[in-house]
Amino acid sequence: MATGTLPSRSQVEEIVRQVVTARLAGTHSGPPRLEVHASARHMHVSRQDLDKLFGPGYELTVDRPLPQPGNFAAKETVTLVGPRRRLISNLRILGPLRSRSQIELAFTDAVSLGYDDLPIRLSGNLDGTPGALVMGPHGVVELPNGLIRAAMHVHMNPQEAAHYGVKQGDLMKLRVAGDAAVTFERVHVRVDPSSRLGVHMDTDEANACGLSRAREIVLFK
Amino acid sequence: MATGTLPSRSQVEEIVRQVVTARLAGTHSGPPRLEVHASARHMHVSRQDLDKLFGPGYELTVDRPLPQPGNFAAKETVTLVGPRRRLISNLRILGPLRSRSQIELAFTDAVSLGYDDLPIRLSGNLDGTPGALVMGPHGVVELPNGLIRAAMHVHMNPQEAAHYGVKQGDLMKLRVAGDAAVTFERVHVRVDPSSRLGVHMDTDEANACGLSRAREIVLFK
Repeated sequence: MATGTLPSRSQVEEIVRQVVTARLAGTHSGPPRLEVHASARHMHVSRQDLDKLFGPGYELTVDRPLPQPGNFAAKETVTLVGPRRRLISNLRILGPLRSRSQIELAFTDAVSLGYDDLPIRLSGNLDGTPGALVMGPHGVVELPNGLIRAAMHVHMNPQEAAHYGVKQGDLMKLRVAGDAAVTFERVHVRVDPSSRLGVHMDTDEANACGLSRAREIVLFK
Repeated sequence: MATGTLPSRSQVEEIVRQVVTARLAGTHSGPPRLEVHASARHMHVSRQDLDKLFGPGYELTVDRPLPQPGNFAAKETVTLVGPRRRLISNLRILGPLRSRSQIELAFTDAVSLGYDDLPIRLSGNLDGTPGALVMGPHGVVELPNGLIRAAMHVHMNPQEAAHYGVKQGDLMKLRVAGDAAVTFERVHVRVDPSSRLGVHMDTDEANACGLSRAREIVLFK
């Protein structure tokens, strides 16, 4: 740490690993290599809702692959209508399909739409979250819930979890050093054999810490 | 952000509300009482530029006072034109007048306008910053520079500085605890006898840390 100590520093084991974004590759010593991705607002859609929005049996078109294996940004977008009839148009759908539709917004998006208290949730944990009207080219879906701000999280496989000494559900910290150095203290660990090591944050978080020009990024317990 | 009900949604943004968390006062041990304010994007204007934008000799109208003594949000707004001819309309002017015009944006604002690398600066430190076209009801000003993301800072008087054991120009840290606990590590100390203790952050930072529903806020060295 460049300046001073956190109050909780004494509680933190010194297993800090030097890790980097893709831009900073080559400056770190040893694996695993960490990437940090900023996710813009998007929608995950269920089969049932895709049928309503784009027509029965519609299939998503891959626009570009995303870092987690099998995930992709689709060419398809929808329009989200908030509680004050404000809109977000061109809300990108991410594939593949999920069992339940879910929309992830940054707080900035939520406030502009009229949601004053969007809950911070892990993906899939949607009970009690607000709903919205979603418009597609074929039809409209009234989601009873599913709007969240995604809690910051890190995907990793079991070997990477062992490297960091963490397990599924643990919290880690992410320090992004630069002109606006920030430590995010609640990075949820998600372990899956098919995962590729990567932290996901939203656009507010990326903008707050100046992610695109960070000088150093460290993930630690 | 790029949202809204107008067809030109990408060109028009609303003013993001200012969040004041006075309710969290008293979370540190003993006085002084800390307040944290989120500043939405705004403009500080010089006498010369106000004359051009609103007419010779024009005086700003107070809409509401701001926490720092003598400062206020004016009723007057301008339209900011970015490098890709994207707009931010209703950009609020803050008073009183300054020797040099300055526009403070969050990164989210800057990206939506087309500025990909807005420098993080302390107020008034404008050399080498980008410029913009500003439109008022009377005329237009071409700012050669003056666009910044304001570095996070804390205003305090000398007694408060003594309490914290800091001086003008020091860096402090601000921990905002909640569902998205974040520690901001570069809070610039600004000491002035007329100041009232208060941290200023921008809307990205406030949204990233969930300022409006933080459970505890601690300012420390």
